[in-house]
Amino acid sequence: MVKNKTKFSVPGFLANGISVGIKKADQKDLGLIYSTVPAKVAAVFTKNTFKAPPLLINEERVKRGIAQAIITNSGCANAATGKEGYKDALIISDALSKQLNIREELVLMGSTGVIGKRLPVKKIEGGIGKLVKGLNDAGIEDAETAMMTTDKYPKIAIRKGVVGAKDITICGIAKGAGMIEPNMATLLTYVMTDALIDSKALNTVFHQAINSTFNSISVDGCMSTNDMAIILANGLAGNNPLEKVQARLQHFREMLTDVLMELCQAVVKDGEGATKFISIMVNGAKSKSDARCAAYSIANSNLVKTAFFGEDPNWGRIISALGASGISMEKEKVVLSIGDVLVFSQNSPLDFNPNKLKEVFQKDRIDVQVDLGGGDKSYYVYTSDLSYDYVKINAEYST
Amino acid sequence: MVKNKTKFSVPGFLANGISVGIKKADQKDLGLIYSTVPAKVAAVFTKNTFKAPPLLINEERVKRGIAQAIITNSGCANAATGKEGYKDALIISDALSKQLNIREELVLMGSTGVIGKRLPVKKIEGGIGKLVKGLNDAGIEDAETAMMTTDKYPKIAIRKGVVGAKDITICGIAKGAGMIEPNMATLLTYVMTDALIDSKALNTVFHQAINSTFNSISVDGCMSTNDMAIILANGLAGNNPLEKVQARLQHFREMLTDVLMELCQAVVKDGEGATKFISIMVNGAKSKSDARCAAYSIANSNLVKTAFFGEDPNWGRIISALGASGISMEKEKVVLSIGDVLVFSQNSPLDFNPNKLKEVFQKDRIDVQVDLGGGDKSYYVYTSDLSYDYVKINAEYST
Repeated sequence: MVKNKTKFSVPGFLANGISVGIKKADQKDLGLIYSTVPAKVAAVFTKNTFKAPPLLINEERVKRGIAQAIITNSGCANAATGKEGYKDALIISDALSKQLNIREELVLMGSTGVIGKRLPVKKIEGGIGKLVKGLNDAGIEDAETAMMTTDKYPKIAIRKGVVGAKDITICGIAKGAGMIEPNMATLLTYVMTDALIDSKALNTVFHQAINSTFNSISVDGCMSTNDMAIILANGLAGNNPLEKVQARLQHFREMLTDVLMELCQAVVKDGEGATKFISIMVNGAKSKSDARCAAYSIANSNLVKTAFFGEDPNWGRIISALGASGISMEKEKVVLSIGDVLVFSQNSPLDFNPNKLKEVFQKDRIDVQVDLGGGDKSYYVYTSDLSYDYVKINAEYST
Repeated sequence: MVKNKTKFSVPGFLANGISVGIKKADQKDLGLIYSTVPAKVAAVFTKNTFKAPPLLINEERVKRGIAQAIITNSGCANAATGKEGYKDALIISDALSKQLNIREELVLMGSTGVIGKRLPVKKIEGGIGKLVKGLNDAGIEDAETAMMTTDKYPKIAIRKGVVGAKDITICGIAKGAGMIEPNMATLLTYVMTDALIDSKALNTVFHQAINSTFNSISVDGCMSTNDMAIILANGLAGNNPLEKVQARLQHFREMLTDVLMELCQAVVKDGEGATKFISIMVNGAKSKSDARCAAYSIANSNLVKTAFFGEDPNWGRIISALGASGISMEKEKVVLSIGDVLVFSQNSPLDFNPNKLKEVFQKDRIDVQVDLGGGDKSYYVYTSDLSYDYVKINAEYST
């Protein structure tokens, strides 16, 4: 086990990422995260009916509240593979548990890549020895790289702080560029922390943090068979335990949300072919579900997304997408601003400077604000534009 | 009034299309359809909250059951323009009614183009004299051309047949390439017929025919502020009147559905940047709404659409989109075929010939069939692929 200096390490966690030949040209495609002691675990899984076998296995194992390792391959999603896919995943989990000398139920698994193809089990099994041997406390970046597919860059975020009278660390990694959808966790997000925390508290806090971060992003409105977010907390910081309803739990949640928000913004910025980061804020809704529905109707509109890509200040498409959301609203009360330009109010366009709006559309980050004037509920969504490269990347993915 | 030979004419209907300078470079942008006698009318309007002023006016007028003229401009949608936009539309309708010497309530209006810009009222008013003067019984193609925006070609369909002991004609025109969404009528579809038909029967039959045609197409899942379908029936054929629950009404409905289906397929084929015509058929659903939801989840998936564009037989994306639909299904019972290749059954990929599937993806028309194995309800949707040109067309639309 090699010890390196790195800014991305968490006490008690080792990681590694290697190439076993699932992807082309010696790219890393098999990663491992390992806690030297069994850790508390919480997780959020995709709601897709055709949830991939590794996730079905994880769902059962996570119920015990303890896990110790997450092995992830890229290049093949092991989804829509039925019973054979399930058996394939179990072969990997069995081999890894033997190599790590831990109980098999402590192994979690992730897979990402093409759907409907069998996992190259032999290649993965054959690499597990090397993968485990190379585990090191500076290996988190390698583990992250090994789960990238169409991602242009790795996504890692870390926060350190004093919680419960001790220094604690929270480090998260994420893989995702397309197929991101609300209510679906994310693609793959793994969080490691040495904080000592009660199982129930971990579960509550993790769900809250995911809801206010990853469940508010949308790249293409598609939801995957393999999306999943997992947190492992190994307790090695030895802090005063974090339990329900404590100020220190609140502090931990803020740090965790911060880590997830950084990852989630990185995912949107790296959205397949994305050239812009767009935030859609809907205020003044009667209910949160109305605000959410309005925000997603705008964020998922291909016409809105292409206008942003083309830097075409065609704001009418935002109004059209809002009107198509199906929520009830008084159109006289709706106010639309893009950046600092007020464009629409009292059901009419305002007399703004078109050059100023054009400038807003030319920026890398664009803030869209809608006020429905009908209540006090709000919702925000982060999204990206729709570019030639989105089409290019996705038209040529499996071949 | 010039009399020309054309295959597209309907007794008692005159039409024309001219350029008044709303669009660039002398393109036709103002069209008129006129029945020499007041006609029975039925219509379907967009459900967008920000329905354009001309549609709001039409909705009121159509309630009277009679109309005689439809004037349509392209290049400006007169939507999200508030009270001023409403007044602009009334100026046009007033000017046209005077020129035609008919009651203003018999004038219907359509607008298509950029949302949020005021209508160039002076240009339109100035052109109305010429528009009316040029009305002729072979002018339907000109009227159609005048309402095109990103359409690559005009869409006209005609059927003739004996109904109620007389020859009758049904001719429809459609304008639409993007922003087409179910439950939303279409973009603009106008149907002219000389059949003699009772108002209630016309309304029932038109809604039924729209539901089984235009409400089953989806190009980009966006629904416009200006979508509308109108039928005018001037009764000049003098047939035995068509009323409810008659065999001849059934025959009329079949002819009408045929006309609308031809238009609707032309609209999908001309979908912005479309290179493929894709039909999604979902069978074996518990309810029609489940079947519909599943079909649209597949049809509106950008990942599925880009795979078709790239001729990439990445069928797992169809399963993923189906699983993301949110309907309940027994995944063991789901069967997926693409063209004549059975690809997925009993929750597992089948042992098909990948070259055969590749060939299916290379065709211009692709049939996707899903059987949910859970009931006897079905739904189909026609859609197109998502190409570079979709992005190109829509990134540069308003500028």
